[in-house]
Amino acid sequence: MATSSNDYLQAHKEQFLEGLKDLLRIPSISTLPEHVPDIRRTAEFIADELRAMGMRGVEIIDGKPGQHPLIYAEWLEAPGKPTLLLYGHYDVQPPDPLDEWQSAPFEPTVRGDDIFARGASDDKGQTFILIKAVECSLRSEGKLPVNVKFLIEGEEEVGGEHIEEYVPLNKERLKADAAVVCDTEMFAPGLPTLTTGLRGLVYTEVEARGASHDLHSGVYGGAAPNPMQALAEIIARLKGPDGKIRIPGFYDKVRKPSRKELDAWKHLPFKERVFLKKEVGAAALTGEKSYSVLERVWARPTFEVHGIRGGFVGEGAKTVIPAVGTAKISMRLVPDMNPKEVLRQFTAAVKKYTPKGIKTTVRSLSTAPATVVSTDSPYIAAAAEALGNVFKKKTVYMRSGGSIPVVGLFLQHLKMPSIMMGFGLPDDNLHAPNEKFHLPNFYKGIESVIHYFELLGK
Amino acid sequence: MATSSNDYLQAHKEQFLEGLKDLLRIPSISTLPEHVPDIRRTAEFIADELRAMGMRGVEIIDGKPGQHPLIYAEWLEAPGKPTLLLYGHYDVQPPDPLDEWQSAPFEPTVRGDDIFARGASDDKGQTFILIKAVECSLRSEGKLPVNVKFLIEGEEEVGGEHIEEYVPLNKERLKADAAVVCDTEMFAPGLPTLTTGLRGLVYTEVEARGASHDLHSGVYGGAAPNPMQALAEIIARLKGPDGKIRIPGFYDKVRKPSRKELDAWKHLPFKERVFLKKEVGAAALTGEKSYSVLERVWARPTFEVHGIRGGFVGEGAKTVIPAVGTAKISMRLVPDMNPKEVLRQFTAAVKKYTPKGIKTTVRSLSTAPATVVSTDSPYIAAAAEALGNVFKKKTVYMRSGGSIPVVGLFLQHLKMPSIMMGFGLPDDNLHAPNEKFHLPNFYKGIESVIHYFELLGK
Repeated sequence: MATSSNDYLQAHKEQFLEGLKDLLRIPSISTLPEHVPDIRRTAEFIADELRAMGMRGVEIIDGKPGQHPLIYAEWLEAPGKPTLLLYGHYDVQPPDPLDEWQSAPFEPTVRGDDIFARGASDDKGQTFILIKAVECSLRSEGKLPVNVKFLIEGEEEVGGEHIEEYVPLNKERLKADAAVVCDTEMFAPGLPTLTTGLRGLVYTEVEARGASHDLHSGVYGGAAPNPMQALAEIIARLKGPDGKIRIPGFYDKVRKPSRKELDAWKHLPFKERVFLKKEVGAAALTGEKSYSVLERVWARPTFEVHGIRGGFVGEGAKTVIPAVGTAKISMRLVPDMNPKEVLRQFTAAVKKYTPKGIKTTVRSLSTAPATVVSTDSPYIAAAAEALGNVFKKKTVYMRSGGSIPVVGLFLQHLKMPSIMMGFGLPDDNLHAPNEKFHLPNFYKGIESVIHYFELLGK
Repeated sequence: MATSSNDYLQAHKEQFLEGLKDLLRIPSISTLPEHVPDIRRTAEFIADELRAMGMRGVEIIDGKPGQHPLIYAEWLEAPGKPTLLLYGHYDVQPPDPLDEWQSAPFEPTVRGDDIFARGASDDKGQTFILIKAVECSLRSEGKLPVNVKFLIEGEEEVGGEHIEEYVPLNKERLKADAAVVCDTEMFAPGLPTLTTGLRGLVYTEVEARGASHDLHSGVYGGAAPNPMQALAEIIARLKGPDGKIRIPGFYDKVRKPSRKELDAWKHLPFKERVFLKKEVGAAALTGEKSYSVLERVWARPTFEVHGIRGGFVGEGAKTVIPAVGTAKISMRLVPDMNPKEVLRQFTAAVKKYTPKGIKTTVRSLSTAPATVVSTDSPYIAAAAEALGNVFKKKTVYMRSGGSIPVVGLFLQHLKMPSIMMGFGLPDDNLHAPNEKFHLPNFYKGIESVIHYFELLGK
């Protein structure tokens, strides 16, 4: 891979790292309204980068009020060559709990081979890989071996409403042979990985209301409905300690992975004990005993409570029966579950399990179908070759338990596969304190994308 | 009741109301460390009142670091007459949720016949009744018909550690024939009421821990333990939708009220529909069907969740499996349940119901036994007469579902009954937004206590 693009990369590593740090310093938390100006600054930062390196038609695309901007850019001067749609997202998760961070989440800090910051791996670092790979080609050779279009969003962590509306209305503009989605992880350090399946998501907020106002638990306890108790009962009835989800109809459409896929997973370097001790750090794993851990996180639907709010939670004792309580609950979906149908089933089950005296409402915050990408695509084969050459190991295929709604969107509206080329590591602490990105993967990621362009451009 | 004390009361109503407002303006929230200076200011305010009106030996008694001061004062110049220990508390519950208050909780506001403020009824307003009754006698006649001692605390809402330590060490100083505890309510507006039984309390905080750090629910969901799910399961297993508490051994020592007591309760002007609609304001009442509502709130033990904290509870969606979750849970006790034994049973049950992969810890924040006071005491009889004369109705006896730990303390260490003469109303919104005190009850309360002193001094 001794190309001039690659030489350019080797000569600019320091500079790329400084650029990444600048990007990570902007707290582009998409879920918090007070960070709207930071979201805008981040979009402008990226648009400036794209413009400076020679991309054409760079545009910050505003959505409806309350939506965060998309960034579009293109370089289409390789006639007859394939066209790739390069996707990443510049928004990040909230950093709380703040006191568990070893260095501040928006002061990127290099310790050893890792850079620590919110968004380092998910997904600013990986989005920057795509940008820098294109920059290496354009700056060193003045051109690219393929045609590329960038579509970068700022709402991936909050449901991606803007891109969901934009894609079906801009099919011609976004048309490409394949998308390259840089937002996944490698199965293990040093092991080049393509992700070929993603779980879908139905994310909800369940509110339970009892009395019209907070009550004294001494005076009313024993006769007044308690919404916190109700939420506990509903949640406990929706999922049992055996990991089985008790929503009527929930499992009806679950498609099992193929025998070939299951066999391949058995050969991955996965050790349950290491996963438990090093990644999860709990006393034991949970879930459905009759499925392997990889099946549980890749190929089985889930039910998780993300947070519960309600009543008195300060220091000390307050003897109150709260009037209202709220739980954030999501379900991960696998092929061929239908998000709308699951939301209906969930809502019906919540109502069914709501105890006397309590009123519940279910609000949907985000939905996405599960997707599986065919490994037969030539764009997958070239990606496997590029990664294998750079990392000097055979590329493996895995699924991811997470959801990248845009993959389903591209498949549905643009009829193209997404090549999920990811450079995160399993211990990157995504969505958690001390998120990090492994810097050797940052540089090898850029090298891999450069090489992928070259293979496809041949 | 045309006495000079009473004339003094009638002439000073306006002034007493202004004094009460001054007292209510100080945010003496005992559970929040930032209000320690307010607690001190309140104790000084009361001590100044007691000194100014002619009480002797007024003392602010400091406890250990972190404890809130007691106030002691005495007037013992009625030889041969009974001695009463007058008890109230000057601390209040936190006012949250703040946005549900119609006027600010520490800006006392009179609307109609009610004064609205945190602590208006519980218990600054009622403590002030005792103080002002003594003031009326001392200022108008220069003496009292009985001997009195004041013991006023600032930790009633946070477990009363200081008074619990102080009483057994100061038996001689606190010795009296009966205590007058002014911290309960009337069964109905206009119906003079003595409370003869109180539920006890075991208040706990249960912490559940899963993974060592927050996890991405996509990547780990289905295999990693979730402490919010665990709390839901534990709570749902500890109490069923039928209101039955499933803690092994929990009901073993429950003593039923006497047939006479149960019969008397049946004749109280209680309408379940009014209780549900006007007081609770929910779709339905809950709890043990085989017991009447009054039995459920007065004579049956309870299990209530006061608040749950954990995970992401902000706006929008964060796909996290939190590492830790906490629930505040209390149990109300009835005679003859033992708080220590109940705490042991509860802790064992929590451990038993803790699912795989989760570690739970139970912390006790407050305990108090239930108490029943004999209606045979002459101090009860005189109180019933005093109340009956002032309110011009026959005094009824009720129990209270709440806990006043000091009643158990006085019984155990000072061997004296507590006369629970209360002037709150059922819709006073104790521990809730828009707490109020009915001003006619404030004045009639003072009149009743003056008359009680006179009856006992005959």
